[in-house]
Amino acid sequence: MAKIFIRELDNIKKIILSLGAMVEERVRLAVAAVESKDAKAAQRVIKTDYEIDEMEVEVEEACLKVLALHQPVAVDLRFLIAVIKINNDLERIGDQAVNIAQRVAVLAKHRDVNFEFDYTRMAEKAQTMLRMSLDALVNLDEDLALKVVTLDDEVDTIQRDAYDHIKSAMKENTDKIGYMINLLLISRHLERLADHATNIAEEVIYMIEGEIIRHGNY
Amino acid sequence: MAKIFIRELDNIKKIILSLGAMVEERVRLAVAAVESKDAKAAQRVIKTDYEIDEMEVEVEEACLKVLALHQPVAVDLRFLIAVIKINNDLERIGDQAVNIAQRVAVLAKHRDVNFEFDYTRMAEKAQTMLRMSLDALVNLDEDLALKVVTLDDEVDTIQRDAYDHIKSAMKENTDKIGYMINLLLISRHLERLADHATNIAEEVIYMIEGEIIRHGNY
Repeated sequence: MAKIFIRELDNIKKIILSLGAMVEERVRLAVAAVESKDAKAAQRVIKTDYEIDEMEVEVEEACLKVLALHQPVAVDLRFLIAVIKINNDLERIGDQAVNIAQRVAVLAKHRDVNFEFDYTRMAEKAQTMLRMSLDALVNLDEDLALKVVTLDDEVDTIQRDAYDHIKSAMKENTDKIGYMINLLLISRHLERLADHATNIAEEVIYMIEGEIIRHGNY
Repeated sequence: MAKIFIRELDNIKKIILSLGAMVEERVRLAVAAVESKDAKAAQRVIKTDYEIDEMEVEVEEACLKVLALHQPVAVDLRFLIAVIKINNDLERIGDQAVNIAQRVAVLAKHRDVNFEFDYTRMAEKAQTMLRMSLDALVNLDEDLALKVVTLDDEVDTIQRDAYDHIKSAMKENTDKIGYMINLLLISRHLERLADHATNIAEEVIYMIEGEIIRHGNY
């Protein structure tokens, strides 16, 4: 394998990891803004989303360049296609961080409501899943990727708890239904974020096995 | 360009269109099940989702085969990468049809509730967007793809109306909050479905222009 090709693959691994780190940080900031009902901090997450979009384009262009110049086959071809799809998921995780941040404006208007839902555990799990799925990608670690898939069930369980919990609170606080719907939607955004991390992990397993586990056949 | 390569590209166009038609039909069935509160029809949508998953795999494998055997460059390379990403969006639209269908069980239990939300207009718009985005793909029709992007704003407007409408209904029917949340979630699934159609259209424009419009820079 040409040295320049190896160097370019390494470069792609480096930039997809940077994008992953950037996305992870945005998720952290968005959830922190929810917890503190800090509308200004939420605005920063919304306004800087273009940086993630730009980096997504950079990753895809790098992959297309390597595909066109080196015309890789077999495992290298699968790796590049996996990166292109994972790149897409990372950008959408960034969009979820924006969605979460957009809910903060409503929360900030209701500082008096004393019903809160603790998103920390759910958010931390989702972030762990994201980090693990990217580590699994660069280290081609199938076991780690499989762990992410099982973690997704835990996030779904917390999401169902959130749903029940918030639903009962709605009945008791009919004057705060807008606020409560926002809490419900935040929990769904976190769930979708975890889904994207799961997609990444499944893509890694698919690439390694060259087989299909994506749709539960394992 | 080798005849066999042209034939294989044509075949890929054909199977992605079949997948598109299959996905469109599932969306139609899921929305019909909502409208008629028909839990059995909804179950059929859920149980046959594996067919979409299998076809997604088939499309991706076909693309990888062409990439490995013919090592296309320039516009053909971009086309194949676009199909791989669009394929992914189609599979996720299928997941949204399943998500919608999963809500029907709760609706069916509340045949007595006389509050309904008319999803027909929203669903029809989302389906039109899906059909147009796939036509834009196979005909490389940039104008048509741009039209899809503008339609997405209309779906977002209907979604906001749904939100306001259902929110007020919740306040007046606090004993039916679970039912109402289901209506709200169906409208969000339809919105996400339209988002995926928009992603497809943006991918087509991106491919044609070889430029980035995906992130609103147009």
